Amino acid sequence: MYAISLGDDGAELRPLEPWHAEEFLAHLDRGREFINQYVPFGSQVTDLDAAREALKRYAGMRAADTACHHGIWQDGKLVGGVLALNVDAAAGTCEVGCWLEPAATGRGLITRAMRHLIDWAVEERGIHRVEWVAASGNVPSLNVARRLGMTCDGVRREAHLHHGVRHDLQVWSLLAPEWRAARARTAHNDH
Amino acid sequence: MYAISLGDDGAELRPLEPWHAEEFLAHLDRGREFINQYVPFGSQVTDLDAAREALKRYAGMRAADTACHHGIWQDGKLVGGVLALNVDAAAGTCEVGCWLEPAATGRGLITRAMRHLIDWAVEERGIHRVEWVAASGNVPSLNVARRLGMTCDGVRREAHLHHGVRHDLQVWSLLAPEWRAARARTAHNDH
Amino acid sequence: MYAISLGDDGAELRPLEPWHAEEFLAHLDRGREFINQYVPFGSQVTDLDAAREALKRYAGMRAADTACHHGIWQDGKLVGGVLALNVDAAAGTCEVGCWLEPAATGRGLITRAMRHLIDWAVEERGIHRVEWVAASGNVPSLNVARRLGMTCDGVRREAHLHHGVRHDLQVWSLLAPEWRAARARTAHNDH
Amino acid sequence: MYAISLGDDGAELRPLEPWHAEEFLAHLDRGREFINQYVPFGSQVTDLDAAREALKRYAGMRAADTACHHGIWQDGKLVGGVLALNVDAAAGTCEVGCWLEPAATGRGLITRAMRHLIDWAVEERGIHRVEWVAASGNVPSLNVARRLGMTCDGVRREAHLHHGVRHDLQVWSLLAPEWRAARARTAHNDH
Amino acid sequence: MYAISLGDDGAELRPLEPWHAEEFLAHLDRGREFINQYVPFGSQVTDLDAAREALKRYAGMRAADTACHHGIWQDGKLVGGVLALNVDAAAGTCEVGCWLEPAATGRGLITRAMRHLIDWAVEERGIHRVEWVAASGNVPSLNVARRLGMTCDGVRREAHLHHGVRHDLQVWSLLAPEWRAARARTAHNDH
Amino acid sequence: MYAISLGDDGAELRPLEPWHAEEFLAHLDRGREFINQYVPFGSQVTDLDAAREALKRYAGMRAADTACHHGIWQDGKLVGGVLALNVDAAAGTCEVGCWLEPAATGRGLITRAMRHLIDWAVEERGIHRVEWVAASGNVPSLNVARRLGMTCDGVRREAHLHHGVRHDLQVWSLLAPEWRAARARTAHNDH
Repeated sequence: MYAISLGDDGAELRPLEPWHAEEFLAHLDRGREFINQYVPFGSQVTDLDAAREALKRYAGMRAADTACHHGIWQDGKLVGGVLALNVDAAAGTCEVGCWLEPAATGRGLITRAMRHLIDWAVEERGIHRVEWVAASGNVPSLNVARRLGMTCDGVRREAHLHHGVRHDLQVWSLLAPEWRAARARTAHNDH
Repeated sequence: MYAISLGDDGAELRPLEPWHAEEFLAHLDRGREFINQYVPFGSQVTDLDAAREALKRYAGMRAADTACHHGIWQDGKLVGGVLALNVDAAAGTCEVGCWLEPAATGRGLITRAMRHLIDWAVEERGIHRVEWVAASGNVPSLNVARRLGMTCDGVRREAHLHHGVRHDLQVWSLLAPEWRAARARTAHNDH
Repeated sequence: MYAISLGDDGAELRPLEPWHAEEFLAHLDRGREFINQYVPFGSQVTDLDAAREALKRYAGMRAADTACHHGIWQDGKLVGGVLALNVDAAAGTCEVGCWLEPAATGRGLITRAMRHLIDWAVEERGIHRVEWVAASGNVPSLNVARRLGMTCDGVRREAHLHHGVRHDLQVWSLLAPEWRAARARTAHNDH
Repeated sequence: MYAISLGDDGAELRPLEPWHAEEFLAHLDRGREFINQYVPFGSQVTDLDAAREALKRYAGMRAADTACHHGIWQDGKLVGGVLALNVDAAAGTCEVGCWLEPAATGRGLITRAMRHLIDWAVEERGIHRVEWVAASGNVPSLNVARRLGMTCDGVRREAHLHHGVRHDLQVWSLLAPEWRAARARTAHNDH
Repeated sequence: MYAISLGDDGAELRPLEPWHAEEFLAHLDRGREFINQYVPFGSQVTDLDAAREALKRYAGMRAADTACHHGIWQDGKLVGGVLALNVDAAAGTCEVGCWLEPAATGRGLITRAMRHLIDWAVEERGIHRVEWVAASGNVPSLNVARRLGMTCDGVRREAHLHHGVRHDLQVWSLLAPEWRAARARTAHNDH
Repeated sequence: MYAISLGDDGAELRPLEPWHAEEFLAHLDRGREFINQYVPFGSQVTDLDAAREALKRYAGMRAADTACHHGIWQDGKLVGGVLALNVDAAAGTCEVGCWLEPAATGRGLITRAMRHLIDWAVEERGIHRVEWVAASGNVPSLNVARRLGMTCDGVRREAHLHHGVRHDLQVWSLLAPEWRAARARTAHNDH
């Protein structure tokens, strides 16, 4: 029902809901191995029941106002998404994250979608600090953080165990005044 | 974040979420008596905690895929809404309903919003039968059903007790083929 | 422990409880296909655990005062039952329903049992409107509604999907004053 | 709906249900101090909400098949009751208990009601051992155990703290063969 | 982290926690048949998930302050344990129990561990009556009760069904003044 | 029942349990303002029910194996504590924290207690990375991290809102090999 156009190439952002279970499963089936390179997102979702359960779990987080998940549709096909998690509106903090199937990479979809999500967090929800966490080896993810104007706060040494390997986790952040200043600069540059 | 324009007069349809608690309360404070004329919608929502609880309950229904609530914003102010409830996608049935504060009546907001909701139900969710229930004395509500092209299935005699008075409940319905035919006629008439 | 005689032919009405699981399963095994002709009652109850779970679910509804299930025993054998559901004592409304295995049909067991159930609803619980819902093709069920003096309120078109077929649902009702008047006439006719 | 006559004096045994909340409260208001002499039964039930909650809790136990509560009505007034608790049908054990408001004592109501309850436990549910627990000072309760043909198994020293005083608890029991033999003797004596 | 030495032979008492699941399973695998001779303790714990679930259930009881489970480690190997259950601090009552794998019997481990547990119950928690329940044929268990200075309160006839056989259950008890007097005598005898 | 001596000055570490509610409340009453200077620990615990609830919540975390809370008793009086939280044994990570009432500061109690907790985490639970988080202004807390041999991983800018002020949060960590090396050096220095 709802959709936000992400540009002229047919990409759209939409709420990701329990009734998208079939699309979500098909999407993960196409991209599970790639998506799970650094984080276990969707690794358990290997049949329709698990897909529905996962989406219901996300919907429960949205009902509790601690997270929200949005899908990215390219030409009517679900190809990835962005999410806010650990949302604490009273404290003014949240984390944001993303995932993408391999065929949809390289087009800036995440950066475009993330701008809408951060706008919502900062302007509609009053979030002061948006955090981005990525394994030190996850170059594309770190590049998104950089492109969004984030600052690296530090490196949580060997904090993440994935597929039997310990990874450092980089923590990046964006404060509301920084976001607004960056947007003002962008608006200026548009002229 | 998401919004669907309902026309040129600044009216928009948006998902109604737990974090809208303050707006929802203010809206009900303006319209509670009017809205509760025939149904107890929002009658318990008299403080912020109750508003948040009610919206979380709605979000829980959305997570369970049995209902969804959408607000109507007029010039940035929440003035009413439409909802689907008793959604049973497997059986292909749902009920739809609405509410409005008095200052927002008379402009066709409900009919406009309902068209988007029914489109979603029929075309995105595969609902075959959309039901509308209204007290026999609730003329504006019955007029919406009529305007949407619904058929009266019958009258559940004295089925509804509200404010100490027994009301007959009219049951109206719209089947998917009827909706599609009506839309085709409308499209034709547009030319 | 408790039993109400339904006549001189050894038929009795009793509360249907979780500990009847074995009898309930055996009864459904004899009648499942017949009972499920129009509604899915008991379709999942194909082993003892499922029988116990179903009866506990019914008992939970009784504890919440929203439903009660009663078995009909013929010569010590459970052959069917009647139930009240969607009981809303504050609103004065409920629905009633029934089921029967094929060998027990044709003797008026349901009508006899239903009279006790409706008496309880109207006289002990203060129910004002008793509703009966049946698929339009379910002639025996519609005949019971007629025999109990009910009125047809309308037809919810194509409201029920069962075994892949859409059925119209007839809605019948009985109001407390109608029930009392009918009983007074019956008492008169007895003389 | 259901009732078992306890004799010619208008006393009846009936299931005690959540919808009896008003009667249950009125009954406890008449007898709370007397009933609570040795056990805290009903001590918290001092308003209608608490009465409903207590009865729902009992109904939940019945749904779990661990207990059942029955009221004794004298001339249409709820005056006390009997209950089975800690029912373990697989192990063949349960405890039974009772309560009575003062105006209803001295007529053998408990003994009469208990015979039906023990019959149900032994003959319908296959209980092998029925246990009765009473404070050593509770002479009327011990007399009922004696009248029912029970045997004293022992005294749990200072096991019960009530109103600041430690009481010994007598444990009495009745085994299924003993119950059947006693009933056979009674039947014989009737001739 | 925590441990209480039970003597010079390397035996220790420690809290038994969910993260001991592997040790608990290995211990039960060595002693299940022996331990289950009279009670079903650990009979379901036949894989790691079940071991973890059982230990979490115990931890839940400790969180609710109704029970606590302690393991006995002999030379670093879990060989049995003691527990308090049905703890009711307000009423001043609890039950205590124990289990042991066969290789660890005959060394007084249970008696030694139980002294610490009863001390804790009586002196730290204010328990007035400590109860011990054992099948009449369970001679080692009855000997522990005797060694701890307990008194037999009675015999609950045929109260326990285990492996298809009905067992009498002996109920023993120890009152706080008795425990303190016994300890004073022991201290005196030590000189 | 269990206690670990923290030295010759009568300080002990013990499990902090729901039944310590009265001591916990008295302790917080003495130190709440001081303890809450940087974190809201215990701020809600202002009566006995709240104290019991908080301790039950901690016990629930221990049952789920995600946290454990330990009290520090000085001469028999509860004066503070240390805790592990966000324990993820599979991932080999946890966070540790502490609190102290003002009268107990300046004696190294936290550092002494923390050594036992980290030993347990690293050696008994296999934790690879122990994390310490403190507001940048919380000098005593940062000093403990330094004394324990931790490394500062970074500063999460303005991540913590407390009493209306935004604080930077320093993240420190200790890896298992670092802990073992530090302990080896300490052992060497003891000679």
